[in-house]
Amino acid sequence: MSRRGRFISLEGGEGAGKSTLLAGLHAHLMQQGVNLLQTREPGGTPLGEAIRSLVLDPAHAAIGAESELLLMFASRAQLVRERIVPALEAGQWVLCDRYVDASYAYQGGGRGQPIERIAQLEGWACDGVKPDLTLLLDLPVSTGRARAARRGAADRIETEADAFFERVRQTYRERAQAEPQRFRVIDASLPQDRVLKAAIAATAHLFEAG
Amino acid sequence: MSRRGRFISLEGGEGAGKSTLLAGLHAHLMQQGVNLLQTREPGGTPLGEAIRSLVLDPAHAAIGAESELLLMFASRAQLVRERIVPALEAGQWVLCDRYVDASYAYQGGGRGQPIERIAQLEGWACDGVKPDLTLLLDLPVSTGRARAARRGAADRIETEADAFFERVRQTYRERAQAEPQRFRVIDASLPQDRVLKAAIAATAHLFEAG
Ligand SMILES: Nc1ncnc2c1ncn2[C@@H]1O[C@H](COP(=O)(O)OP(=O)(O)OP(=O)(O)O)[C@@H](O)[C@H]1O
Ligand SMILES: Nc1ncnc2c1ncn2[C@@H]1O[C@H](COP(=O)(O)OP(=O)(O)OP(=O)(O)O)[C@@H](O)[C@H]1O
Ligand SMILES: [Mg+2]
Ligand SMILES: [Mg+2]
Repeated sequence: MSRRGRFISLEGGEGAGKSTLLAGLHAHLMQQGVNLLQTREPGGTPLGEAIRSLVLDPAHAAIGAESELLLMFASRAQLVRERIVPALEAGQWVLCDRYVDASYAYQGGGRGQPIERIAQLEGWACDGVKPDLTLLLDLPVSTGRARAARRGAADRIETEADAFFERVRQTYRERAQAEPQRFRVIDASLPQDRVLKAAIAATAHLFEAG
Repeated sequence: MSRRGRFISLEGGEGAGKSTLLAGLHAHLMQQGVNLLQTREPGGTPLGEAIRSLVLDPAHAAIGAESELLLMFASRAQLVRERIVPALEAGQWVLCDRYVDASYAYQGGGRGQPIERIAQLEGWACDGVKPDLTLLLDLPVSTGRARAARRGAADRIETEADAFFERVRQTYRERAQAEPQRFRVIDASLPQDRVLKAAIAATAHLFEAG
């Protein structure tokens, strides 16, 4: 039996460089001989990807904060059961573009949904599955938005005001401070190769037995 | 200012005759000069109808009980805020094909999701909005399934086993017993005109001032 895999989540605001880093980290881990599942939130399953299309669609401008929160956790509950748990049990590592911290940051910090409610949903949806390592790509809001804007049309959440994304950033930083064992904060204003180097260094301890 | 409208929900198993009754009740209430919003669950808003397509799609056979529950409440939270509350505040009556009791019956009784969890979600999603009257169309499972089968291809939930629908029926009946003020149980094995007559009689007290 191979031992249980490792679970790494990538977090950060819009345009912080999560997807860019994911590609680099994926390549690095493959070179290390790690058997990997790469996935994302919301999404990662047929149901989750359908939910992703709904919540990010600018046409659904009317979506309330409560519905958004429940949809994010509906996607997450499915991802955990259908993909993450089976992968970890099979000894695969999981590399996920956003996970539960994103709900605390966006639906909690950003939209003002109560923290206790999010914690309760986490208990129901996540089946006790927590990342072994969460890489937080931290970046001034303006820098991230400028990067994201270059990429094309804004989705429903990207159309929020700067103050929304300041609250998102602040919540992420508070969560990182509260759980220093799990989080590594990376200065995402550094060049891509420096960000990748920092991320690779942060994964080193995951190779230790345990 | 017109006084607050009335909220009537219709509940019952597959093929109990909810949609049939809804049409008859709608016609009756219009004749009484009532200004009506007719809607349904899951659905009733653009987001909700998209969620409905997801949860009823037989292609999404993998949907877990947790995700199903959260999706139903995501649809409901949106329906309450976008349609039901504004209608009631404008003095309209609301006639809804299924509402929160359906989650207790299907996701609770049927799928075994904990009642306290559903109650918690009700608190978050429903904004305190409870039906003034819930008509429960009660029918043996086999009769309802035979009726529904005549109507065409089964959706994802209709493919469940009889035991699932027995639990649904039982949960509905228990809820009706627990809240006799709000519920009226109608024998749905009666002919359509008798069912409609019983439903009309059950609405009479809603016309009283208050
Ligand atoms: N370290 C970096 N320095 C400068 N530009 C970067 C850096 N990392 C990524 N970028 C660029 O910034 C843009 C956004 O990067 P990316 O798509 O990886 O961000 P993201 O965090 O995944 O965004 P989103 O939250 O919208 O998915 C891309 O054009 C990417 O090439
Ligand atoms: N009282 C009745 N007696 C006999 N047949 C009925 C009665 N009411 C409805 N039907 C028939 O049973 C079938 C199912 O009725 P209907 O679609 O109204 O049920 P429903 O409760 O809305 O079902 P679903 O839960 O699948 O939406 C229809 O063909 C309808 O014509
Ligand atoms: Mg990305
Ligand atoms: Mg119907």
